[in-house]
Amino acid sequence: MINITEQEIVDLVIEEVKGYFNSSSLDGNSSSKLDYPFIPLGVSNRHIHLTKETFEKLFGEGNEFEEMRPLYQPGEFASKHTLAVIGPKLRSIPAIRILGPLRKYDQVEVSLTDAIYLGINPPVVNSGDLKRAVALTLVGPSGSVYIERCAIVANRHIHMTNANAIKFGVVEGDFCKVRIGGEKGTTFENVLIRINDSWKLQIHLDTDDANAANVRDETYVEFLGKV
Amino acid sequence: MINITEQEIVDLVIEEVKGYFNSSSLDGNSSSKLDYPFIPLGVSNRHIHLTKETFEKLFGEGNEFEEMRPLYQPGEFASKHTLAVIGPKLRSIPAIRILGPLRKYDQVEVSLTDAIYLGINPPVVNSGDLKRAVALTLVGPSGSVYIERCAIVANRHIHMTNANAIKFGVVEGDFCKVRIGGEKGTTFENVLIRINDSWKLQIHLDTDDANAANVRDETYVEFLGKV
Repeated sequence: MINITEQEIVDLVIEEVKGYFNSSSLDGNSSSKLDYPFIPLGVSNRHIHLTKETFEKLFGEGNEFEEMRPLYQPGEFASKHTLAVIGPKLRSIPAIRILGPLRKYDQVEVSLTDAIYLGINPPVVNSGDLKRAVALTLVGPSGSVYIERCAIVANRHIHMTNANAIKFGVVEGDFCKVRIGGEKGTTFENVLIRINDSWKLQIHLDTDDANAANVRDETYVEFLGKV
Repeated sequence: MINITEQEIVDLVIEEVKGYFNSSSLDGNSSSKLDYPFIPLGVSNRHIHLTKETFEKLFGEGNEFEEMRPLYQPGEFASKHTLAVIGPKLRSIPAIRILGPLRKYDQVEVSLTDAIYLGINPPVVNSGDLKRAVALTLVGPSGSVYIERCAIVANRHIHMTNANAIKFGVVEGDFCKVRIGGEKGTTFENVLIRINDSWKLQIHLDTDDANAANVRDETYVEFLGKV
């Protein structure tokens, strides 16, 4: 008789499945190497950040901003809430998820594929840099709002700690190159280094980049040094 | 008094506009260098090839397959006809253009972004290689057809003549690397060399690749040699 709880069984199965994905390298895109120079990939799908004020305008005053599940970076989470956005072509993309916590700005991060569909020409910039951001209409269940400067394409970036930075030989603001192998092998330039000791090591690419290289999450990219 | 026809004025304006686009390098992605090692880019949006039999099934017997405009490669053209396709998620992509001339096979070339939207997992292969292609339903104005093996992601490839091949130091079937500079600088591996003396020098990337690098047509890519 083994003394094991249901939760422990669930955890064991999760670990086994994770291990399977990490070691599978059918297409050469996956790697079990967790160490330098390999960096875990997080694919950023289109998403939204909102201020408390805009959230209340779109969902109704008093409506609570609720977490659905935590994200990989500590403190970040997918909320239970989504919005539709509409651009100048009057086409809408429905059900874009709002990521928490609530921010000091309203921001819609899209891929260039989304931008072409919506009919906008957003700049490729850091999250939070809205000087050259372009307009979209955000529609929620209790209202809509036209925001002059909200839409951007987030630049490629790597989250890391100061300890990671020493290992990789980089400093905050450096631009680097990374490579993903396989059938659609691709090298990405101008990947920004962002440092914060509360972050886990992770590279963020958007869906255009990830789809160009034919990869999803559960992939590791190879760090090739500064540009 | 200048002796010039209306057509000559039109041609002059077209040349001027072309020259402007070729010389503009605001984002570092364009180049006026037409010579080695630079190759003109053609971005392949999703498209369809059909047999005469399938065309008649979808558009009605006796309906003529008509050209809308010629494409860059001699003999190839965009037809006047489009179809909707539907995958296992029962989402449709409307108005996918059929490219002519009619073929000996039915084929739907999509990006991985399209494939995820439709819920299919197509192989990355040469156009015409349908052994591992996956199923889609094609819907026309006069009928629909479920085709077991039709959907692929076309691989990256370069069309060139034998004379080009000598200059680039490659042979039919070689795999090469190319680079696009700029804000989202990207190097693409496993670009297949295809040779035919009737072709014009051109690299074909799909919309995922082009959007990852943030470029459209009117761009030149840099040939970096064999993989």
